[in-house]
Amino acid sequence: MPPLKVAIAGLGTIGALLVERLTRQAEFIAHAAARQVELVAVSARKPRDYGSAVINNPLDLAQRQNVGVVIELMGGADGIAHDLVKAALAHGKHVITANKSLLAEHGMELAQLAEQQGLCLNYEAAIASGIPIVKSLRESLIGIEINQIHTILNGTSNYILCQMADEKISFQEALATAQQQGYAEADPHLDISGEDAAHKLKLLMSLAFGCRLSDIPTQGIQDIHSLDIGLAHQMGYAIKLIAHAQKNGEYISGAVRPMLVPLESRLAQSRGTHNVIALYSHHNHLCLEGEGAGAYPASNGVLADIVDIARGMRLPVFGVPVQQLAPRLVKEQAQPSAFYLRVLVMDRAGSMAGIAQLMAACDISLASVSQPPLDKKEQSAPIAMMTHPVLEDKIEQALAKLAASQVVIAPPLAIKIADG
Amino acid sequence: MPPLKVAIAGLGTIGALLVERLTRQAEFIAHAAARQVELVAVSARKPRDYGSAVINNPLDLAQRQNVGVVIELMGGADGIAHDLVKAALAHGKHVITANKSLLAEHGMELAQLAEQQGLCLNYEAAIASGIPIVKSLRESLIGIEINQIHTILNGTSNYILCQMADEKISFQEALATAQQQGYAEADPHLDISGEDAAHKLKLLMSLAFGCRLSDIPTQGIQDIHSLDIGLAHQMGYAIKLIAHAQKNGEYISGAVRPMLVPLESRLAQSRGTHNVIALYSHHNHLCLEGEGAGAYPASNGVLADIVDIARGMRLPVFGVPVQQLAPRLVKEQAQPSAFYLRVLVMDRAGSMAGIAQLMAACDISLASVSQPPLDKKEQSAPIAMMTHPVLEDKIEQALAKLAASQVVIAPPLAIKIADG
Repeated sequence: MPPLKVAIAGLGTIGALLVERLTRQAEFIAHAAARQVELVAVSARKPRDYGSAVINNPLDLAQRQNVGVVIELMGGADGIAHDLVKAALAHGKHVITANKSLLAEHGMELAQLAEQQGLCLNYEAAIASGIPIVKSLRESLIGIEINQIHTILNGTSNYILCQMADEKISFQEALATAQQQGYAEADPHLDISGEDAAHKLKLLMSLAFGCRLSDIPTQGIQDIHSLDIGLAHQMGYAIKLIAHAQKNGEYISGAVRPMLVPLESRLAQSRGTHNVIALYSHHNHLCLEGEGAGAYPASNGVLADIVDIARGMRLPVFGVPVQQLAPRLVKEQAQPSAFYLRVLVMDRAGSMAGIAQLMAACDISLASVSQPPLDKKEQSAPIAMMTHPVLEDKIEQALAKLAASQVVIAPPLAIKIADG
Repeated sequence: MPPLKVAIAGLGTIGALLVERLTRQAEFIAHAAARQVELVAVSARKPRDYGSAVINNPLDLAQRQNVGVVIELMGGADGIAHDLVKAALAHGKHVITANKSLLAEHGMELAQLAEQQGLCLNYEAAIASGIPIVKSLRESLIGIEINQIHTILNGTSNYILCQMADEKISFQEALATAQQQGYAEADPHLDISGEDAAHKLKLLMSLAFGCRLSDIPTQGIQDIHSLDIGLAHQMGYAIKLIAHAQKNGEYISGAVRPMLVPLESRLAQSRGTHNVIALYSHHNHLCLEGEGAGAYPASNGVLADIVDIARGMRLPVFGVPVQQLAPRLVKEQAQPSAFYLRVLVMDRAGSMAGIAQLMAACDISLASVSQPPLDKKEQSAPIAMMTHPVLEDKIEQALAKLAASQVVIAPPLAIKIADG
């Protein structure tokens, strides 16, 4: 077989390590790929000597005659990354990308283009890069009806929540630590808002449920206080940013949101930047846990994608052809769930009674109430409540009433409690 | 592409479900495989109407002209299964098998034969069938230097140990329950002796470390008393049948044995028939957990193997060609480890002092000693000790001396304690 000729656009930490491994592990990769893999061109903002052609405009990679695979590691949902991937596919090049926002945004269009051209669009490094989840869903778990996905997909948020719990520090302090440690970007918006996890969950839902990509409700961790983490812990729960989805017949739903998960569960025990992906079907419960990011796991995902292309594996981007992906329907009927509710009230007689009456008026039945020791400085008292299962609409109504109450002195917080 | 024609030898629960799914999910499988998959012959002890040719002698499947893939689901390391796989490869048929004992015993010979013939020998269902571990190691984790494997690979033993812990029943009672529930065979030897786990670990070591198959020290769970499980629990540990291996440069070692693992660890928390596979490298810690057995997960492993063959994936059986597999070397120097030691002594003054002196004479330093309440009926008293790290040789010497001691009334037991 002739060598497989690849070009890399974007030489950050992943790209740089990939260039290094393509040289250092060349012999090994050639065995795995059953042919030589040759790096013929790179495009980077800071050109160095890479032993291969350095191209200023990444878009030129899409048109170079000797390139068989374009590896997009620039990032960003739109702009140059999108243009490059489209152009590469249009010019008959296979594409590998680690870019989850690009795929979450333009995945349907790009998958269709790849299919029309008979080309690969591979993206193992885009979701939980230390976990071989794309290959598992596209190739191993075929014919299994997965009906639930419970995951932790954002390492930065998980690291921040772990820091808040372990060090009893505020969200802002934990975010600063994460930034110092290199676990959070200078602009952490994508991570802490839940958007990054939502991008990945959208892709997982398509792969696992065979449905088109669509938007999902997304909520981040910015409003969690260390107080909430402590109160939840006393009740036997951890607070985690959970990306979850379910399929029930033709009805499919998903969401990213902070949730209370039982301390003894896999999700609660996930530490630091680890990702967890739990898949449920009638016949199996498969749980995969590993690094969510990092140059080495990510470069490995890209290498596995290269080898698959080199060996001639040509799979539909989301497991089945785009035309056969089911439209995504929202679940017809909301299910009741237990909630954690926390309010800060003025430290004076009758506050607790007022809150209890308000909840009763909203027809929300409480499983437990706790009022931890007061913060003297603040003259405020937190009240934590666990509800019996109730529809989320009622919780929304209660939150509005609580926010309007005169005894409540800060925005109240509601967090869904995961089932056993 | 012409249809891929497959034949199945052995129609137990896995084979029967596979036949059913090849019909029921035919359209889906054809999409995944990018061609039709056609069942053209079966061989079973109890012939029924399978809508395809029923062959009395499974060996005939290897020679039938219209068969492209022989699926061996008969089991057994030797005899007919071995003969069939060899004959099929010799006659140019791809082979899929779920038979770990066959592969553990004859894997090198069969892999070499498959390579010479340019054929596939696929076996996703042979190890932890609910976990896509063969594909992950052969295709996803390429170029990663895995240096440790910690696993629970035998669901039957794990179920028995969980039952002993939860129900506070004896090994024999738990085994009987497992047999009633269908989780243990009438002859449970392969499972409870650790041999089944050892077969699977040997295969995993070859895949993860790139080494030849070789035998590993193997110990089962028959000598564990419910007493030990209770004592270990008080000390913060669970007792599990652990299959573990490590690679340090060119030195490779592995073993199957009961071990004390910290209660908060993934291995300790594995319930019932679940398998756990934890892989460590310098850059990642990947942990996979799922059903270890069952017709549905196993049939899925076989289906994934079929699809790979249909799509033209041709991978070396153990990831790299047989000639390149490293010889397996035993680790040069044993490492000290902490041990749990349990003895039953006569209930009389001085027993404890005698044991303590004996341990000191063996130069074994104790981290803790506990003597739980006496069993009045038995007139015997258990003593549980946790040692500081010590070489296993010294533990063996101490066991011999304890067994010979006049105050010790039953064979003493030593169990290694897993690191952190």
